[in-house]
Amino acid sequence: MIGLAVIGAGYWGPNLVRNAQATPAIRLEYLCDLDLDRAKATLGRYSTVKATSSYEQVLDDPAVHAVAVATPAGTHFDLARAAIEAGKHVLVEKPLTPSYEEGVKLVEMAERAGVVLMCDHTFCYTPAVQRIRELVRSGEIGDIRFVDSVRINLGLVQPDVNVLWDLAPHDASILDFILPDDVTPVAVSAHGSDPIDAGRACVAYLTVWLSNGTLAHIHVNWLSPTKIRTTVIGGSRRTIVWDDVNPSQRLAVYDRGVDRAETLDERRQTLISYRLGDVLVPALPEREALRTMMAEFASAIAEQRPPLTDGRSGLRVLALLEAAVASMELGGARVEIKKTDDTAR
Amino acid sequence: MIGLAVIGAGYWGPNLVRNAQATPAIRLEYLCDLDLDRAKATLGRYSTVKATSSYEQVLDDPAVHAVAVATPAGTHFDLARAAIEAGKHVLVEKPLTPSYEEGVKLVEMAERAGVVLMCDHTFCYTPAVQRIRELVRSGEIGDIRFVDSVRINLGLVQPDVNVLWDLAPHDASILDFILPDDVTPVAVSAHGSDPIDAGRACVAYLTVWLSNGTLAHIHVNWLSPTKIRTTVIGGSRRTIVWDDVNPSQRLAVYDRGVDRAETLDERRQTLISYRLGDVLVPALPEREALRTMMAEFASAIAEQRPPLTDGRSGLRVLALLEAAVASMELGGARVEIKKTDDTAR
Amino acid sequence: MIGLAVIGAGYWGPNLVRNAQATPAIRLEYLCDLDLDRAKATLGRYSTVKATSSYEQVLDDPAVHAVAVATPAGTHFDLARAAIEAGKHVLVEKPLTPSYEEGVKLVEMAERAGVVLMCDHTFCYTPAVQRIRELVRSGEIGDIRFVDSVRINLGLVQPDVNVLWDLAPHDASILDFILPDDVTPVAVSAHGSDPIDAGRACVAYLTVWLSNGTLAHIHVNWLSPTKIRTTVIGGSRRTIVWDDVNPSQRLAVYDRGVDRAETLDERRQTLISYRLGDVLVPALPEREALRTMMAEFASAIAEQRPPLTDGRSGLRVLALLEAAVASMELGGARVEIKKTDDTAR
Amino acid sequence: MIGLAVIGAGYWGPNLVRNAQATPAIRLEYLCDLDLDRAKATLGRYSTVKATSSYEQVLDDPAVHAVAVATPAGTHFDLARAAIEAGKHVLVEKPLTPSYEEGVKLVEMAERAGVVLMCDHTFCYTPAVQRIRELVRSGEIGDIRFVDSVRINLGLVQPDVNVLWDLAPHDASILDFILPDDVTPVAVSAHGSDPIDAGRACVAYLTVWLSNGTLAHIHVNWLSPTKIRTTVIGGSRRTIVWDDVNPSQRLAVYDRGVDRAETLDERRQTLISYRLGDVLVPALPEREALRTMMAEFASAIAEQRPPLTDGRSGLRVLALLEAAVASMELGGARVEIKKTDDTAR
Repeated sequence: MIGLAVIGAGYWGPNLVRNAQATPAIRLEYLCDLDLDRAKATLGRYSTVKATSSYEQVLDDPAVHAVAVATPAGTHFDLARAAIEAGKHVLVEKPLTPSYEEGVKLVEMAERAGVVLMCDHTFCYTPAVQRIRELVRSGEIGDIRFVDSVRINLGLVQPDVNVLWDLAPHDASILDFILPDDVTPVAVSAHGSDPIDAGRACVAYLTVWLSNGTLAHIHVNWLSPTKIRTTVIGGSRRTIVWDDVNPSQRLAVYDRGVDRAETLDERRQTLISYRLGDVLVPALPEREALRTMMAEFASAIAEQRPPLTDGRSGLRVLALLEAAVASMELGGARVEIKKTDDTAR
Repeated sequence: MIGLAVIGAGYWGPNLVRNAQATPAIRLEYLCDLDLDRAKATLGRYSTVKATSSYEQVLDDPAVHAVAVATPAGTHFDLARAAIEAGKHVLVEKPLTPSYEEGVKLVEMAERAGVVLMCDHTFCYTPAVQRIRELVRSGEIGDIRFVDSVRINLGLVQPDVNVLWDLAPHDASILDFILPDDVTPVAVSAHGSDPIDAGRACVAYLTVWLSNGTLAHIHVNWLSPTKIRTTVIGGSRRTIVWDDVNPSQRLAVYDRGVDRAETLDERRQTLISYRLGDVLVPALPEREALRTMMAEFASAIAEQRPPLTDGRSGLRVLALLEAAVASMELGGARVEIKKTDDTAR
Repeated sequence: MIGLAVIGAGYWGPNLVRNAQATPAIRLEYLCDLDLDRAKATLGRYSTVKATSSYEQVLDDPAVHAVAVATPAGTHFDLARAAIEAGKHVLVEKPLTPSYEEGVKLVEMAERAGVVLMCDHTFCYTPAVQRIRELVRSGEIGDIRFVDSVRINLGLVQPDVNVLWDLAPHDASILDFILPDDVTPVAVSAHGSDPIDAGRACVAYLTVWLSNGTLAHIHVNWLSPTKIRTTVIGGSRRTIVWDDVNPSQRLAVYDRGVDRAETLDERRQTLISYRLGDVLVPALPEREALRTMMAEFASAIAEQRPPLTDGRSGLRVLALLEAAVASMELGGARVEIKKTDDTAR
Repeated sequence: MIGLAVIGAGYWGPNLVRNAQATPAIRLEYLCDLDLDRAKATLGRYSTVKATSSYEQVLDDPAVHAVAVATPAGTHFDLARAAIEAGKHVLVEKPLTPSYEEGVKLVEMAERAGVVLMCDHTFCYTPAVQRIRELVRSGEIGDIRFVDSVRINLGLVQPDVNVLWDLAPHDASILDFILPDDVTPVAVSAHGSDPIDAGRACVAYLTVWLSNGTLAHIHVNWLSPTKIRTTVIGGSRRTIVWDDVNPSQRLAVYDRGVDRAETLDERRQTLISYRLGDVLVPALPEREALRTMMAEFASAIAEQRPPLTDGRSGLRVLALLEAAVASMELGGARVEIKKTDDTAR
C-alpha cells in the first residue's frame, strides 16, 4: 500500500483526494494546504484522513511514500524538489513547471533519485484519448494527415496565466500521447489576442509543424458561453472525430475511401475523389480519468517504471508551450521546438 | 422581365438554370456551353429554353439583358468583359477573377458602363448568414471579440486550385458580409499543407487581423470524410454558433453574462467570471439561398443599384485571398491586405 | 419509353411531375387537374408538357400508358378504376382508397386487367428504410423484439381526415415493408385525442400485436412545433435507431450483447445483463425517395411484375388502419386486422 | 442537525450515503445493511460513519432522527412502519410500497405520528424537471395538450418486478409533479410484452387519460442497447422537449403560433396552420438531483411540513401503477385510477 499525501486543497486537490481514496493500492495519509481550514473543509466531517498545513510534517512522515502536488504552477518546482530530496515519488499537476529549464532539472533529479515523477495529464487517461492512442499508434487510421484541436471553454479568465498556458497544455499533452513515435512536433507558429483587455491573451491559435510534414493546429479560447471541445485526427485510412461534450457519441471513426477516379457526374475534372463511408462509434467505458491516472501512478511506483505520462512527457509539453509563447511574442514567426534528450515513450 | 443567359453547364450552372426559372422577374433565354450536348442534357427533355454553344449569339441577342457566368475561374475575366462591353449585366461565380488586378478592371468597367456586376457569394443569401448579419450589424451581439470559421469538406481535391482558393472564398465573403462597416480585415497570416502530395495545399489555416484588434480565423480542409461547417462569432454580449450541417438547429445565440466577481467556490483567484446563459435558437425559413441571390440580382438590375454582393465585395474577398496566398508562400508571415478604394456597403 | 400522366396538381403532384421528368424510362405527357390554371402554373413557363383539365383526354390518349394519381383520397377509387378500365397502369398516392373494401376491388380489377397497380409509399424508397429492410429481413438484427415509431409533425391539421389516416399510413407501410415475411400485424389497439377541438383526432397511439408475440407501437401527432421522427427496431442481436430529422446520422445500428451473468457490482440480483456495444452508422446515399419510387414504377411496368409496394401492400396498410379506427371508436379495445388473401411479398 | 441512518447498501444506498454526507443540515450516523461487510465496503476505508447490521440498534439510537430506506420494495412497508413507530422521519425509495393499500397505511401512520414521510422521486429534483414544473404550472406553456414520455433503458432486466414497476414510477412521479393541480390522471390503458421470455413484461406502453380530456403516454422499455429518455409536453402556447441524455441541451422550449389561415401554397385546404417559432434552451444548473432531494428532506423535517414529494405523491404514483397493471392483465382495457383522499400539492 502506497502512502500518499495530496498537497493543495484548491481547485483540483479535492478531485485527487476523492480518487486517491478510491484507489485500492493507495492509502491517503494527508491533505496538506497552507490554509488548514480549507484542507479540513475539503476532507469533510466524516474523514479519518489527516489535514495539515505543514509540508515538512508530510515529508518527514515515513508513512508517506508519494506526494501529489496540486498547487499553483509557480510552486511546483520547489515542492517537487523537496519531495524528491526526501525520497518521495511525485505526481505534479500540469504544467510540470512554469519553465522548461526548471522542468529539466526536476526530471534529472528524479531520475538520479530513482523516484517516479509523473505529470497529471488527465485527458490522457480518458477512455476516449486512450482509444484514440490505440487507433493512431496501431496504424489503424493510417498515416497522420492533420490534427485539429479546438478547446473553447466557458472557463474563467485566469489571473496569472494566459489562455495558452491555461488550456493548451491539455492539447499539447494529448498530442504527445497519441502521436506515433516517429511523428513529433518540430516547430510552431502562434497568434493570440486579448479582446477584453484582460492583460493577457484570451484567444490563441497554434500551428504546429509535425516531423512528417503535416500540420497540427490548436485553438484555445476562454471567451465563450458554450464549451466546444472537438479534435479531428485525419488519417490516410480513417478519420477520428472526438467531440468531448457529446457523451453519447464522444468518438466517431469515419471510414474513408480515396479513389483516383474520373467522376463524370459531379465535379468532372478531378483527380482524387472522396466518398463518405460508414462511421463506427466505439463503445467507451464510463470511467473517471483521474481514477485511471491514480492507478497508473500507483502501478508505476510498484513496478519501478516510468508512468505513461512521465516527467519527460511533461518536458515535451513545456518545450511546445515555450516555443508557442516565443512565437506569439514574435508576431507569429515560426519557432523551433526544443528537443528533449530522450523522447522515447 | 429580365432576359438572362446562363453561361456554363458544369458543376454549378444547373443550379443557376433551375433558380433562374423559378424567379418571376427573370426570363431564362439561353443556357450556353462550349459543349452543346452538355447544355442540352442539362436543360432536359421538356424545356423551351434555348441551348447554344455560341457566346456571341447570346451577347448579340437583344432579348438577353444579363448573363450569369458559371465557368472555370480562369475564363471569368474575358467572359465578363465581353458581356459588359455588350451592355449586359453580369453575375459571376466566386471567385470574381483569379487575380485582384483583373477584378479591379472588371469593377471599373462595369461602373463606367452602368451595368450591374454581382458576385454569386451564395452563402451570403442563406437564411442563417442573413440572420447573423442582422445580429452582428445591429449591435445585438455587442462588440466582435473573435470570429472562428471551420469548413472541413468531403469535397473533391480540385485539379487547378488549392483549398484556399476553392473553399476560403466562402468564408471570406461571409466575413465581408456580416462584419460591421468599421471592422475590416487588415492583415493575414496563412499556413497550409499538402499531406497527400496533391501538388497544392489541401489544408489551410488563415489568421486574419481585424481593424478592431481582434482575430478572425479560417480553417479550410479538403481531407475529411465528414463535413464540419461551424462558425463561431464571439461578441461582448452574445455569441453566435452557426452549425451548417445541423438543419434543425443551424443557429444558436448564446446569452452571456460577464461578471467581475469573487467566485469563492470553484476558481477562487479569478478576476472575471463567465456564466452560461440561455440559448436562443431562432426560427429560420427553409429557403434556397440561390433563389434569394437570383432575386437580388433581378432587383438590383431593376432598381439600378449595386447588389448586396457587388463587384467590390468580390474585390475585398480577392484582396484577402491574395494576401493569404502571399503569406503562405512566405511561411506564414503577416501580409497586409490591400484596401479597395471604396469599401462602403 | 412509358408515357405518363400525373393527375392532380395539388400538394404532392408537383413532386411527381419533377421526378417523372427526371426518370429516363418515363416520358411525361400530361399534368391533369380540374383547375387548368393550377396545372399550368405547376408546369411553369418553360415546359413542353401538356396541361389539361380533362381526365378523359388523358385516358383516351394512346401515348399515355400509365397514370399517377395524386388527388384527394376520396377520388382515388373512381380515377384508378377508370384508368384500369382504359388499360393504363396506375400509381396511387397513399392511402390506396378510403376503405379496405374499395381497395380490394381495385386490386382485383388490376390483376384481371393485367396492369400494374402501385402505391406511392414514398418512405419505403428512402435509402434509410431500404437499408432497414435489408438489416431486418437478412436476419442481421436477429429476431424482432419491438418496433417503436414516433411521427410528431409540425404538419397542418387536415380538414378531412384525422391524424391516423394522415400520418399512420407512413408508419404502417414502413412496417409492412421492413418486417420479415413470417412476422405480420395481427391486431391493434388505438387511442386518440383531439385537444384542440378540431373535430377529429390530432394525436393517436397504436399498439400493434405482431404474429411473433411482440408489439409494434406507432405514435402520430400533429400538434407540435418541432418534428420528431424516430423509429427504433429492437432485435435480439442488434437494435436500429432511425432518426429521420438528423441527416448526418439517420441510421444507427447498435451492437448488443446479452449475457446471462452475475453482475456483482451494479445490480447484483439480476438474471440478464446488457452491455452497450459499438454503434455502426452506415453510409447512406443522398437519393430522393420519389425518384427511386418512380424508377420502380417504370421497371415494374417494363418487366410486367408487381412493384415493391404493390396494391396488396396498400391493402395491408388499409387493413391495419381500418382496424385501428375501429379500435379507437371502441375506446381502445383490441381489434383483429383483416388478412388479405395473398400477403406474399 | 438531523441525525440520519441510511438503510440498505445495495444499488442506490451508496448514493444516499454520499449525498447525506454533503448535506450540511444532516449528520449521517449509520449505514445499515443485513450484510455488514457490504455496509463497511460502501463506507470505505476513511469514514467515521458507523456500519451496522442491526436495524434495532438504529431505531433505538436517539441520535437518529430519520431513516432513508433503500432496500428492496418488498421490505419498505415493514421498515418504514417500524421507523414511524419509533418516531423517526422516513425517506423511502420508489416505489413507496408494493401495493397501494400498504401505502395508504404508511401515509396515515406517518400523519398520525407527526413525522415526515417522503418518497425519493429523484427525477423531480433534477433541474430539468423543476424547470418544467415551473413552465407548466405557471401557465407559460398554456393548456396541456399532450404529454409523451419515452424511457428506453439499457438497464438490467430485474429479477422480481416487471418494467412497469421498475421504470414507470419515474414517469408517473414526474407527471404527478409537473401537472397543474386541476389536471390529474383519471384512467389508464396498458399493454406490455415479454419478447425475451423473461417471465415478466420488458416493454410496456401506458395511455393515461387526464382530467382535461387529453392523453399522457408512457413508453418504458428494458430491451435496448441505447438510452432514450425524451419527454414532450405539448401546450397550447409552447411545447417543451426534454432530452435527458443530451446534457448540453436537456430542455428546449418551442414557441408556437397557431393561425387559422388560408395557406395557399403548401397544403391549401387547411383550416389550421402551424409555424415553427424560435426555440429557447434555458440554462440549467449542473446540480445533483439527490443533493436537492436530501436538502428538501432536511428542510421538511426542520419546518415540520410535507416535502415536495410526500407520501401522498407516492400514493398517487401507486394508484396509477396499480391501475396500469390491472389494465395490462385485462389486455389493455381502460381502468380507472383510484383517487387518493387528498391530492393537494
